[in-house]
Amino acid sequence: MRHLLGTRDLAYDDALRILDTALEFSDVANRTVPKLPTLRGVTMVNLFFEDSTRTRLSFEAAAKRLSADVMTFQVQGSSVSKGESLKDTAQTVEAMGADIIVMRHFASGAAHRLAQSGWVDAAIINAGDGTHEHPTQALLDAATLRSTFRDDPRGTNLEGLRVAIVGDIAHSRVARSNVFLLSSLGAHVTVVGPTELLPRGIEDWPVAAHHDLDAVIDEGPDALMMLRIQRERIRGEHQPASGDYVRNYSLTPARASRLPSDSIVMHPGPMNRGVEISSEVADSPRSVILQQVRHGVAIRMATLFDLWGGTS
Amino acid sequence: MRHLLGTRDLAYDDALRILDTALEFSDVANRTVPKLPTLRGVTMVNLFFEDSTRTRLSFEAAAKRLSADVMTFQVQGSSVSKGESLKDTAQTVEAMGADIIVMRHFASGAAHRLAQSGWVDAAIINAGDGTHEHPTQALLDAATLRSTFRDDPRGTNLEGLRVAIVGDIAHSRVARSNVFLLSSLGAHVTVVGPTELLPRGIEDWPVAAHHDLDAVIDEGPDALMMLRIQRERIRGEHQPASGDYVRNYSLTPARASRLPSDSIVMHPGPMNRGVEISSEVADSPRSVILQQVRHGVAIRMATLFDLWGGTS
Amino acid sequence: MRHLLGTRDLAYDDALRILDTALEFSDVANRTVPKLPTLRGVTMVNLFFEDSTRTRLSFEAAAKRLSADVMTFQVQGSSVSKGESLKDTAQTVEAMGADIIVMRHFASGAAHRLAQSGWVDAAIINAGDGTHEHPTQALLDAATLRSTFRDDPRGTNLEGLRVAIVGDIAHSRVARSNVFLLSSLGAHVTVVGPTELLPRGIEDWPVAAHHDLDAVIDEGPDALMMLRIQRERIRGEHQPASGDYVRNYSLTPARASRLPSDSIVMHPGPMNRGVEISSEVADSPRSVILQQVRHGVAIRMATLFDLWGGTS
Repeated sequence: MRHLLGTRDLAYDDALRILDTALEFSDVANRTVPKLPTLRGVTMVNLFFEDSTRTRLSFEAAAKRLSADVMTFQVQGSSVSKGESLKDTAQTVEAMGADIIVMRHFASGAAHRLAQSGWVDAAIINAGDGTHEHPTQALLDAATLRSTFRDDPRGTNLEGLRVAIVGDIAHSRVARSNVFLLSSLGAHVTVVGPTELLPRGIEDWPVAAHHDLDAVIDEGPDALMMLRIQRERIRGEHQPASGDYVRNYSLTPARASRLPSDSIVMHPGPMNRGVEISSEVADSPRSVILQQVRHGVAIRMATLFDLWGGTS
Repeated sequence: MRHLLGTRDLAYDDALRILDTALEFSDVANRTVPKLPTLRGVTMVNLFFEDSTRTRLSFEAAAKRLSADVMTFQVQGSSVSKGESLKDTAQTVEAMGADIIVMRHFASGAAHRLAQSGWVDAAIINAGDGTHEHPTQALLDAATLRSTFRDDPRGTNLEGLRVAIVGDIAHSRVARSNVFLLSSLGAHVTVVGPTELLPRGIEDWPVAAHHDLDAVIDEGPDALMMLRIQRERIRGEHQPASGDYVRNYSLTPARASRLPSDSIVMHPGPMNRGVEISSEVADSPRSVILQQVRHGVAIRMATLFDLWGGTS
Repeated sequence: MRHLLGTRDLAYDDALRILDTALEFSDVANRTVPKLPTLRGVTMVNLFFEDSTRTRLSFEAAAKRLSADVMTFQVQGSSVSKGESLKDTAQTVEAMGADIIVMRHFASGAAHRLAQSGWVDAAIINAGDGTHEHPTQALLDAATLRSTFRDDPRGTNLEGLRVAIVGDIAHSRVARSNVFLLSSLGAHVTVVGPTELLPRGIEDWPVAAHHDLDAVIDEGPDALMMLRIQRERIRGEHQPASGDYVRNYSLTPARASRLPSDSIVMHPGPMNRGVEISSEVADSPRSVILQQVRHGVAIRMATLFDLWGGTS
């Protein structure tokens, strides 16, 4: 594997290998000195054209656990505002020594464009591009699902697992990446949201689409993944009214209580408690939200390792 | 000691142990390679909800001298502006691997709240919360006083030392933390400032309060600690007039010349030269302002070491 | 050599020694683990009063390859905005452990002022001061020229090499530092631009000045160095009209085709493709723009090493 750009074009074997490697790496966190010398001398650059402290730190933590050097190139106030192109920025970063470029970009398709251009030799990891893809988020969600359902016949490699993704599907790269990865791994994915928050063309996705969260809950899904509304990406007239949204799509204690007892609740964070999810549910035993964050570091370690030519 | 949240509830023995450890660590700076492997594999996260380059760098320098890994989570532009709660931010940081969280927060009480909540297992260091506390600043001031008066009968463990803190006491967490720590160590603390810059309830603090700096100087204090006016925290009508303030409370060469010859002048920085302190005094031999910065790194090393279970 | 402040007062031998050391260091990038333990325990602080992601990262990459510790003190939002002086900021940074201060400042002369003041013992590297100097940029340009013309009688130590610098000479510290360094190394430097973008007093510089790029191209220079217009430094009435500027000073394919076949094209970045240089030329084989970035890391390694007392 040369880059990790998205899950839509991620081969089944590649996905599974990263998930398996991450499982091994997740033990590193528990060692007295939780570091491996694996990537010593390798430089990972966070090239961020859009803010994301969480994702940046997760990659930074992963790189440091593998003893890589980390540098951060944040655009605001940087030379990009002086008119520099993506090509020149990326080539400059590589000429300074970047072996792996982790790129967050506001434009959908930016990571693919950089990878296909031949502009740089560095391995590229898409850390979110517009409303398009965020593959390491989907991989960490898959890792969380596998780990939760490890000893459950439903969960072996996610084959047959029923996952519902709820909320702002249209503007969510997390939803998009999860839909393609989880389906490819054999899960049955349902997306749930009001019409204005489901993407056009949803009928071509490998999912069932619903407007009625209560009906979906009554089907007893194994996992509910709650998303926040990405208001910063929605134009005025299409903003769903908050009251209606909460009434129809918030995961309240009442709704959660109707889920099977071993169903889990996920959220990619940051949460808006009281909007898409109630505090009581977020803090309940069925919530695996912090496990998702933990698996995030392991998945990013596995991705860095894999792109650097490692075999586990 | 599990956390360092403030000096008001800091036990005498704990304070003394940190001061003693810092004394040992202050030698590290003079080694050819000024680093110890003590905290290798430990991750310290600067979780800053308010800007403070100086404090952040001092903690970063301390962590690096002990070979810890450092990550910085600055809120502006981060997920907190998307509505995330302190609980979720802190738990996320911990799930990414934080062993020690150094938190600066604009709200008084934030560090205590985080520590008492049980939300995280990480050790918490309060690096300043609102107008409340800034314990490592008080500890570094105590370290500077101890080191200055080491061979002086007045200064053994600060017992009997007379310290006057001058200026904006009301809005200063530095003043608050110093008052409680220095009194607990046996010093006599006087606070000096105009009525509007003394806090309500000052009569319950273990200090003498004065409005007249000249009278306090005539009493011959061992140390004067000058504070800047925290204009960013004062509402319009209570801003002291600059001219009056400088006339009455600035440490001018004329005032400094009336101090005993071995009295020292302190300032937590950043200084406004020409306002609370004149350049001539700031640069005079009695100024220990840069020693304070140096002791700051050693105190933070000692605090990290102590919270990580070290015994020196 | 105690500091690196500019090229105007950089001794010939010092310049040559840094260039030679950089040549040796440039091999380090190709090692499996591209790191040397040379500066272990040394702390380099990027003290930036003006944004520059590229320069900051290049110094950071250089320091990390030499195993130094790196800290960044960026002024926006820092204590400087609370009124702190350069003196106090620099002394504070040193008291926290800085051995080498890399300073970018908006005011011309700031680095010299800091060095001559005696305020700090740390070695100071000027990473750009106002419209004055940017010596490591000139050194990396010289390194690129030497490396390009290594096997060419024109290029031994740049003696006799003909270099034209084109564009906004008046506001460019890059131009200024290059003029003095390249002339001192024996190159013949020509500066080219419209009247309003040539500095007053240009007649005292060791250069020929021209307004006509086409005439300069017809003289067959060995290297053309294209600069961007620093619009952020030019007041309204003196802004050259874009159309005129592009027509007269842009390096188009037509102009480039009239250069000798082995002439090279340089640019310090960030480029405005289509303004001072066309994409076709920037990406052509005669462009050495990315080599400049690569030499930048090696030159900064050499400078850090040299100031730290190294002999190569």
